[in-house]
Amino acid sequence: MYTLEQCSSLIEEQLKQLAIGSKIPAGLYEPMDYMMAAGGKRVRPVLALMACNLFADDMEKALMPAIALEVFHNFTLLHDDVMDNADVRRNRPTVHKRWNESTAILSGDAMMILAYRYMCQAQPEILPVLLDTFTRTALEVCEGQQYDMDFEQRANVSINEYLHMIRLKTAVLLAACLKTGAICGGSDAANAESLYRFGISLGLTFQIQDDWLDVYADPDVFGKAIGGDILSGKKTYLLLTAFEKADDKTRAELSALLNNKMPAGDKINSVKAIYDCLGVSDAARQAMDGYYRQAMSHLREVVVPDESRKIVLEKFAAKLLKREK
Amino acid sequence: MYTLEQCSSLIEEQLKQLAIGSKIPAGLYEPMDYMMAAGGKRVRPVLALMACNLFADDMEKALMPAIALEVFHNFTLLHDDVMDNADVRRNRPTVHKRWNESTAILSGDAMMILAYRYMCQAQPEILPVLLDTFTRTALEVCEGQQYDMDFEQRANVSINEYLHMIRLKTAVLLAACLKTGAICGGSDAANAESLYRFGISLGLTFQIQDDWLDVYADPDVFGKAIGGDILSGKKTYLLLTAFEKADDKTRAELSALLNNKMPAGDKINSVKAIYDCLGVSDAARQAMDGYYRQAMSHLREVVVPDESRKIVLEKFAAKLLKREK
Repeated sequence: MYTLEQCSSLIEEQLKQLAIGSKIPAGLYEPMDYMMAAGGKRVRPVLALMACNLFADDMEKALMPAIALEVFHNFTLLHDDVMDNADVRRNRPTVHKRWNESTAILSGDAMMILAYRYMCQAQPEILPVLLDTFTRTALEVCEGQQYDMDFEQRANVSINEYLHMIRLKTAVLLAACLKTGAICGGSDAANAESLYRFGISLGLTFQIQDDWLDVYADPDVFGKAIGGDILSGKKTYLLLTAFEKADDKTRAELSALLNNKMPAGDKINSVKAIYDCLGVSDAARQAMDGYYRQAMSHLREVVVPDESRKIVLEKFAAKLLKREK
Repeated sequence: MYTLEQCSSLIEEQLKQLAIGSKIPAGLYEPMDYMMAAGGKRVRPVLALMACNLFADDMEKALMPAIALEVFHNFTLLHDDVMDNADVRRNRPTVHKRWNESTAILSGDAMMILAYRYMCQAQPEILPVLLDTFTRTALEVCEGQQYDMDFEQRANVSINEYLHMIRLKTAVLLAACLKTGAICGGSDAANAESLYRFGISLGLTFQIQDDWLDVYADPDVFGKAIGGDILSGKKTYLLLTAFEKADDKTRAELSALLNNKMPAGDKINSVKAIYDCLGVSDAARQAMDGYYRQAMSHLREVVVPDESRKIVLEKFAAKLLKREK
């Protein structure tokens, strides 16, 4: 049974061996390396390997599909940064700031193609189902990003619409990683589907937690400034819950606050005060608990030769959701 | 045997049936339709169908891969327009002008993924080789675009470097269309490779002709203003040939002219005068003739049950290169 650390180092070693950034023309491949080297937790390929390991001891079979999913994820970050005009990612200038926008677009395009090349290195007999899952997921992620941009322009967004958006933008990729890993490990369709659903529920929990942490995290632990979403007026789970729970007067007050050019600290505190009155934090935590329980129930559905192998996945999920004891 | 017109209408019918633009969210899919509807000559999928028809009567087998290649081509145009900051394509505003840049980036991304989805609808037994060809080609097209952008920043570019760039940016996709069609039609590897080489040579002829027409075309027939490449200082086959043929004095004169802010007509005439002194037009025509002969020789290598089937491809090539009698 592979631990989190073993899965992570398998991924890092394989990425090093691929040496993406050493290809020419350098203007195309170096930014990919820059993007991939920024790292992060490699959550997606790790999930793929762990899912594979539920069914098989040979992780080699899942390695290139796992890498493909990580390359795809980094491609979406690269293009999202251009679309959001973000200056910084993981404490470094974004690719379009460090180079330029054309480089960011073109290197991103080539990264997506490379992701397909890596996915195609899966075993031929499972390739059609892996490609079908990958392509469907990739399109859904684009759809999620489009809904996210659409929502910025809209006055009213329902919580259900928001959940649909984060399902597409965030959850389906985590789910696809688990399903892909499972299939590489020899899982049947039913188990792969249960793991897919586990990933969806986990992704929803994760995204709502992200929204919650922006307002309620301990600033010393969180590592980034509190209230960023409030200041940018982002339609988060918290804000949309507040809009649904508020009466007309409070709703008008909240809208006015978001458009008010008052000092940042005052704005955050005033919005938070409304959230507190409406019980927004509790509502978000309840939603998170519900999706987390759903996730665990889907994981229990999975039939594996050795039930103890699920512990690695369970612990990794708890770690991601900071539910470790 | 299918004619050019029959191949074209198979493609148009299939595109209509796919109704790409009717999917939601509309913000993602409508721009794809807008891009695809602009049409053009559908050169790439038509080449794929014609190559298939050399070996098979059933064109159905090549249809979705042909569509995939056309969708991919339109994706490259969409993103190239953003990178080149072009305002107009085929007499209509470009996607990033009609909508915005984020839309152009994201719809382009989704178009490329859709191209893979369509390619994956090929028959399973040939899918690995088709995907390998497609992915390799798609990466090469990105590399070609990168070299093209790199060349804009460089003082010296050799003709060989230029030929390598246009091979990647233009020729390999035409070649891949022919190879893909041939494989769908049941061709063996050797014939598919000969058709690939036919496409490479055709693509090189085509691109050099494009450069030549910018300066020497009959403006009434050409349909766009003459001398655009001279005014933008683009490193074309003509300009690079002039630089290689010129002595130091003439080279300096040419460089100064390109940077001179004189009236457009005067600049075009002065550069043309230097081209005429150096025999640049003849050199370009010789290169075109050479590549065209190469193309025809590769087409002759192809072993088909019925030699007369090659006529459709030959005539289409001649039409593209305006060599019809």
